Amino acid sequence: MARVHNFSAGPAALPLEVLEQTASELIDYRGCGMSVLEMSHRSAAYQRIYDETEACLRRILSIPDTYQVLFLQGGATLEFAAIPLNLMRRGRAGYVVSGNFAKKAWEEARRYGEAVALASSEDTNFDRIPDLSPVAERAACGDLDYIHICQNNTIFGTMYHELPSTGEVPLVADVSSCFLSMPLDIERYGVVYAGAQKNAGPAGVTVVIVRRDLIEDGPALPICPTYLDWRTQAAKGSMLNTPNTFGIYLCGKVFAWIERTGGLAAMEQRNRAKAELLYSLLDGIDLFFGTAQPASRSIANVTFRTASPELDAAFIAGARERGIEGIAGHRLVGGMRASIYNAVDMASVEALAAYMTEFEENRRTQTRSS
Amino acid sequence: MARVHNFSAGPAALPLEVLEQTASELIDYRGCGMSVLEMSHRSAAYQRIYDETEACLRRILSIPDTYQVLFLQGGATLEFAAIPLNLMRRGRAGYVVSGNFAKKAWEEARRYGEAVALASSEDTNFDRIPDLSPVAERAACGDLDYIHICQNNTIFGTMYHELPSTGEVPLVADVSSCFLSMPLDIERYGVVYAGAQKNAGPAGVTVVIVRRDLIEDGPALPICPTYLDWRTQAAKGSMLNTPNTFGIYLCGKVFAWIERTGGLAAMEQRNRAKAELLYSLLDGIDLFFGTAQPASRSIANVTFRTASPELDAAFIAGARERGIEGIAGHRLVGGMRASIYNAVDMASVEALAAYMTEFEENRRTQTRSS
Repeated sequence: MARVHNFSAGPAALPLEVLEQTASELIDYRGCGMSVLEMSHRSAAYQRIYDETEACLRRILSIPDTYQVLFLQGGATLEFAAIPLNLMRRGRAGYVVSGNFAKKAWEEARRYGEAVALASSEDTNFDRIPDLSPVAERAACGDLDYIHICQNNTIFGTMYHELPSTGEVPLVADVSSCFLSMPLDIERYGVVYAGAQKNAGPAGVTVVIVRRDLIEDGPALPICPTYLDWRTQAAKGSMLNTPNTFGIYLCGKVFAWIERTGGLAAMEQRNRAKAELLYSLLDGIDLFFGTAQPASRSIANVTFRTASPELDAAFIAGARERGIEGIAGHRLVGGMRASIYNAVDMASVEALAAYMTEFEENRRTQTRSS
Repeated sequence: MARVHNFSAGPAALPLEVLEQTASELIDYRGCGMSVLEMSHRSAAYQRIYDETEACLRRILSIPDTYQVLFLQGGATLEFAAIPLNLMRRGRAGYVVSGNFAKKAWEEARRYGEAVALASSEDTNFDRIPDLSPVAERAACGDLDYIHICQNNTIFGTMYHELPSTGEVPLVADVSSCFLSMPLDIERYGVVYAGAQKNAGPAGVTVVIVRRDLIEDGPALPICPTYLDWRTQAAKGSMLNTPNTFGIYLCGKVFAWIERTGGLAAMEQRNRAKAELLYSLLDGIDLFFGTAQPASRSIANVTFRTASPELDAAFIAGARERGIEGIAGHRLVGGMRASIYNAVDMASVEALAAYMTEFEENRRTQTRSS
């Protein structure tokens, strides 16, 4: 069996050993006589899986006891509503509009209160993280319930290299596409949340890490659906109802793989090396150029293109022939995108880099001979 | 490997051949060079899986084209909020309170409008489906947006053997624990919804089947979170955001298994035979008695107990020694519960029946000799 080089933006590549372990346990989980898929979420065996999963995440991210960890469903999109519903006590929050999902989060919040766009890079098609000085200024006014950012913008290939200063105002961050790709100083945040389908596991699990004091009074808005009530979910250990049991189990396997292979510091080192290889090509080869401003470049999603959509299409088609998959950019930006999450190893990135070089050389030869 | 007899109420037993197929495809899905777990939900390969899953469900349930099928997340519990948010246009709905989840659905709806309890069996601890004559009467008044029932009450072991007459008022049914256990006349309903983790697949997928005309004007309440907006989810083919891709794939495998093994008529026949075996024991052995009124007995969840909690505990402990798992009743009722969903085969039910007979005989011998 030949595994392809999978650069998909999410759902995305999983570590091969995680898949192998999962396959080997799929019919009979460690002598239980049943699959994890068939296990009651109220059984001791499943509770053990859940507890180990949470404990491992707490270890690799150094999550303080003052934070609650939740494993929910519905993706970051459902949390876009849960955030104002839980936190907008005074009816006003700040949003940094740095990309497609940042904007969606902002638009959803506007349905529940005043959501102020503190900074935006929409005028340059989100090619950068906007100037964050207005964030600190507004935070100092003391009238915001929270400030929301999307820390890595999957579609546009940008990420925060420094967090905004929000003072006493809780920082709420959608970290979906950079979650577990590097260490995170949890105490800088009020809430961190992520769809699992990039670095943490399969689609269908959302990890929410929330400072306990923010939820102790229950949801800010009484219309909050019970499922979205973080205090209730916390009290029930993420099991107000049946969770995505198999998804959480898979997340646990990914967390254990991260821990076993060096933790988040090692992940960051590898991710930076992979990103640098691609960015150095983008800066060095005339045919390709990166679409994100250099100061905002993501180490998770490398976006680039050639001079024409036709050439982009030829590049993507040739990639497929070489077993390089998931390289087409999002329809909002076109071009190419290489998502180089933890499970995409250096060998895959080198294969892509070699193909980029080859493509450029072939192109040069053709141009010269024509 | 010895598979146990799994009577869990959900997540629950899956067909062995579904698990075997899934394990065999887990690392490389049919030569794609990746797992379904790693596949972009926007890829052609995944869209094919999704489309086949929906088409198979439409075939086995004979779902008319006038109904939309959605595969969502968050379980029936999240739908308890989605139902009033989408449908309570005039602010008033009727609920039949026939068990724990029926009551939770009712309570959630009361947060968004007037939810009238049309009938209840709470006074007899939900041992029956209540008299439904008030439902038809109230439906005739023409002031309700919909009438909600929970068609099978997992915890109490009861089910509807006839649907209430609701006239022009759309009937909304939580069918979680009877979904796909027998044919369903979809046109009798406005909405049918089910958590997948009983008969349809793994936990983490909710199937919603809704009559298209009910959602064409969008949600009834403007505060409806976008994720819960059935019209938007319909327009996006259940992919407003990343769905539980692997869960949907597994549902597809279960649907195909149902189709291959005779469809819903065959499922019903087998389920009735399994239920009859257990109910005949409950009626025939003095030691055990069923907790649901005979006229309301479920063919999915058979609830029973002995004369004392101690004896129940001894029965459950002995069951485990015989590889009979998941037989403890819900904490709200105690005693025992055998969930005999599609994937629990007659051999498992016979093993349980043999153990019940053996337990009763041993008990009789002990009593006689003491």
